[in-house]
Amino acid sequence: MMIDLNSDIGESYGAYSIGADEEILRWVTSANVACGWHGGDPSVMRRTIQRAKELGVRVGAHPSYPDLLGFGRRVMEITRQEARDYILYQIGALRAFAHALGVTLQHVKPHGAMYNAAVKDRELSLGIAEGVADAGGDLILVGLSGSELVRAGRDVGLHVAREAFGDRAYNEDGSLVPRRIPGSLITDPDAVADRVLALRRGAVKTITGKEIPIEVDTICLHGDTPGAGAIARRVWERLEEAEITPRAMGEFVR
Amino acid sequence: MMIDLNSDIGESYGAYSIGADEEILRWVTSANVACGWHGGDPSVMRRTIQRAKELGVRVGAHPSYPDLLGFGRRVMEITRQEARDYILYQIGALRAFAHALGVTLQHVKPHGAMYNAAVKDRELSLGIAEGVADAGGDLILVGLSGSELVRAGRDVGLHVAREAFGDRAYNEDGSLVPRRIPGSLITDPDAVADRVLALRRGAVKTITGKEIPIEVDTICLHGDTPGAGAIARRVWERLEEAEITPRAMGEFVR
Amino acid sequence: MMIDLNSDIGESYGAYSIGADEEILRWVTSANVACGWHGGDPSVMRRTIQRAKELGVRVGAHPSYPDLLGFGRRVMEITRQEARDYILYQIGALRAFAHALGVTLQHVKPHGAMYNAAVKDRELSLGIAEGVADAGGDLILVGLSGSELVRAGRDVGLHVAREAFGDRAYNEDGSLVPRRIPGSLITDPDAVADRVLALRRGAVKTITGKEIPIEVDTICLHGDTPGAGAIARRVWERLEEAEITPRAMGEFVR
Amino acid sequence: MMIDLNSDIGESYGAYSIGADEEILRWVTSANVACGWHGGDPSVMRRTIQRAKELGVRVGAHPSYPDLLGFGRRVMEITRQEARDYILYQIGALRAFAHALGVTLQHVKPHGAMYNAAVKDRELSLGIAEGVADAGGDLILVGLSGSELVRAGRDVGLHVAREAFGDRAYNEDGSLVPRRIPGSLITDPDAVADRVLALRRGAVKTITGKEIPIEVDTICLHGDTPGAGAIARRVWERLEEAEITPRAMGEFVR
Repeated sequence: MMIDLNSDIGESYGAYSIGADEEILRWVTSANVACGWHGGDPSVMRRTIQRAKELGVRVGAHPSYPDLLGFGRRVMEITRQEARDYILYQIGALRAFAHALGVTLQHVKPHGAMYNAAVKDRELSLGIAEGVADAGGDLILVGLSGSELVRAGRDVGLHVAREAFGDRAYNEDGSLVPRRIPGSLITDPDAVADRVLALRRGAVKTITGKEIPIEVDTICLHGDTPGAGAIARRVWERLEEAEITPRAMGEFVR
Repeated sequence: MMIDLNSDIGESYGAYSIGADEEILRWVTSANVACGWHGGDPSVMRRTIQRAKELGVRVGAHPSYPDLLGFGRRVMEITRQEARDYILYQIGALRAFAHALGVTLQHVKPHGAMYNAAVKDRELSLGIAEGVADAGGDLILVGLSGSELVRAGRDVGLHVAREAFGDRAYNEDGSLVPRRIPGSLITDPDAVADRVLALRRGAVKTITGKEIPIEVDTICLHGDTPGAGAIARRVWERLEEAEITPRAMGEFVR
Repeated sequence: MMIDLNSDIGESYGAYSIGADEEILRWVTSANVACGWHGGDPSVMRRTIQRAKELGVRVGAHPSYPDLLGFGRRVMEITRQEARDYILYQIGALRAFAHALGVTLQHVKPHGAMYNAAVKDRELSLGIAEGVADAGGDLILVGLSGSELVRAGRDVGLHVAREAFGDRAYNEDGSLVPRRIPGSLITDPDAVADRVLALRRGAVKTITGKEIPIEVDTICLHGDTPGAGAIARRVWERLEEAEITPRAMGEFVR
Repeated sequence: MMIDLNSDIGESYGAYSIGADEEILRWVTSANVACGWHGGDPSVMRRTIQRAKELGVRVGAHPSYPDLLGFGRRVMEITRQEARDYILYQIGALRAFAHALGVTLQHVKPHGAMYNAAVKDRELSLGIAEGVADAGGDLILVGLSGSELVRAGRDVGLHVAREAFGDRAYNEDGSLVPRRIPGSLITDPDAVADRVLALRRGAVKTITGKEIPIEVDTICLHGDTPGAGAIARRVWERLEEAEITPRAMGEFVR
């Protein structure tokens, strides 16, 4: 019944700032740090890991398709070998900064369109999982609960964390309701907190109102939604009220 | 009196092929592998390290300015911190592939315009050296013999390899004659071999005909000059005739 | 019964050379010039148009997905509006060089994966066609004969050239046999020439041996297949023997 | 005694927003629109020109070194020919959007480090001016008053606008005090307005307190300084109080 809270951070790039990293880092246990391909540049990577370290947040890689223009949000038809190599490249780059700052990488969570494509695409998922395996160091692979990515991670022999979203509506088959559908994004802090508490117990209410079971190790809190900081804080408070302490996934995912 | 022979390889990118890697790898002891910023993509990086391993050639990182369009051959005015972060990023990316293939990175040699700018630019050199130091793992920093880069490497506490060029003319102050000057590039295999033998003894004849002393740990053989393979082979044969066996710099640079 | 021969050229980039431009330009009437997104850089664009002009070959834009790493050969899920804007950007950039050299752009042919995706994707095709329409100047849109792209071009009010491939096998439904299928690529010069002559008459033999009708304004000769120059030359000779003179599509497409 | 007010806009990129475009566009007569190389993507370019058109602001190209990571703020040692080709490429791309929206490009102002380098670098300045000349269409080249760029523009036969900065301190030789020097940036709206009024009369007070003459056609108002909108508005009001109406440079630069 352990639960990790994660968020995507370090996505600023050069002169461009994005996200509420400073706020969100206070209310999560694991941070997914961009590796330069959809956002994040080497100096941002260094500063982001440094800040996560100061705040006691565990760090993972957040690799992407090579698509800065599209912020990694557009599916690209890459081969399994390309996926493997792209993932390994980005993990290596981020790990160098982690190592320089005395931080051990905890996990890898693909970003954006690659994450979404890996829900159903087995070849892509295997490429991602092989890239993580190549990197070594007992990295945990984070994928959507029930996805091909989770399956591929296990097949390749990785530790895997099953992710759920506190601020996204679910379909009855356990998939996420696409963002373009009204009601797909939940922005009321207490509504999100309610869902996080349910997810921790292994349940989520679908957009149709039905409760379905779900296996969850880590819950994603978006840093780019309006009021992201306030939502994350409220989730943390509600967990505390319920006498639940979020733990970094590295403490319990096996 | 040990000598290493190195060459820049792995600079192909996506659909683009460049260099005579397969040939040149047979006649060098250390390979400088591009890291994706001026050439080299993740899949090329993997294949290049794999091939170097098969041929028993030690592998190092060949990081660059972020300038694929200019093949890293144009000076960019970056800060010391940027240099440090860019170097660390690229070393990390390459090291991940080396690690996956069971290869230990031996050295780091900046590419093109960054290498040349670091001959005289102390701030840039310190940034590069700090990036290498951040990466850890006893990496040897390769810089032009007599350069600020060599000095910065020592100041930062790195092992440093002093490089010379068998196929480039020298000025009396030990600097390289710019490529645009006629006679700056030596392409006759035996003339290059003569120079390599002299360099190993610690001497080089300048473009003015004077012999000057020079401290050399490694000699660069270009892979992109016409007849590069034939030159490298001839150098190796002439060294053998003189009963000299080139050694990877990691065996003797301290 | 007029026929145009086209080829993709100007795909070199910075230090990287690709393609047999000089050879192929002698045996085509229309050249599709890369615009910097999958290949081609500004200096290559200038030189390529200059050379096409000298050889009397008409020039068109060959825009792509933003994917230099993948040479534009990987589908990216972009929106109709993104397609429109990407196409317009690249046409504008190329047209500036054409204008500076006194050359009028004749046509636009999407490159690689975008071309292929536009065979069946109506939204993408509309975006491409709208980008061409935005550019003005009576540009001819080139798409695979029978494709959604041809249809979208007409819907938007453009002149459209229907393309066929002399060196690619066809399925019975008029689609191209994917490159990964054995026999999909025809490399014998006379076999290609035979097919070009048949295509000009409006017929193509499928991989199953059946002859199907096809409407063709322009035939693509690849510049990157082995022996591309020899194939193109043989096609030209065989057309001459049949007393057919290829004409740039701008002379007859309405 | 005519004066134009210009600002750099349209520098957002993909998911990244930067600048106070909407505010600043209300208080300038000419807008320098990024062309994708340091900021600005095709969709941003379209929207930016559309908005400038709606607000009656004239549009120019704001080309840059190819350095998105550095936001074009780092000098790159490119050749004269490269400068020419890079400028032409970017003008062409932007002009396509302007043309599609029924807008005529008025001017070209290099961005960031390229602008600064062109103050003293004659070869670079000639490359830039030749690129503008290649583009045709009577584009006005904007350069720092007294710079090599202004000289090169005239030598090449272009119309040239001499620029000054209302919010930057000047040295006695008419050069700008570097941003890293305290006092180099003026942020008090009335202090900026005072300087704009003086500049229009042909005078500027240096950082040493001396008044020097200066020839000015257009004054730059930065959109990325804190309170940029308020500063621009105050400048406009103070000009109105002095019964001066800013005019787009195209109305009076010959």
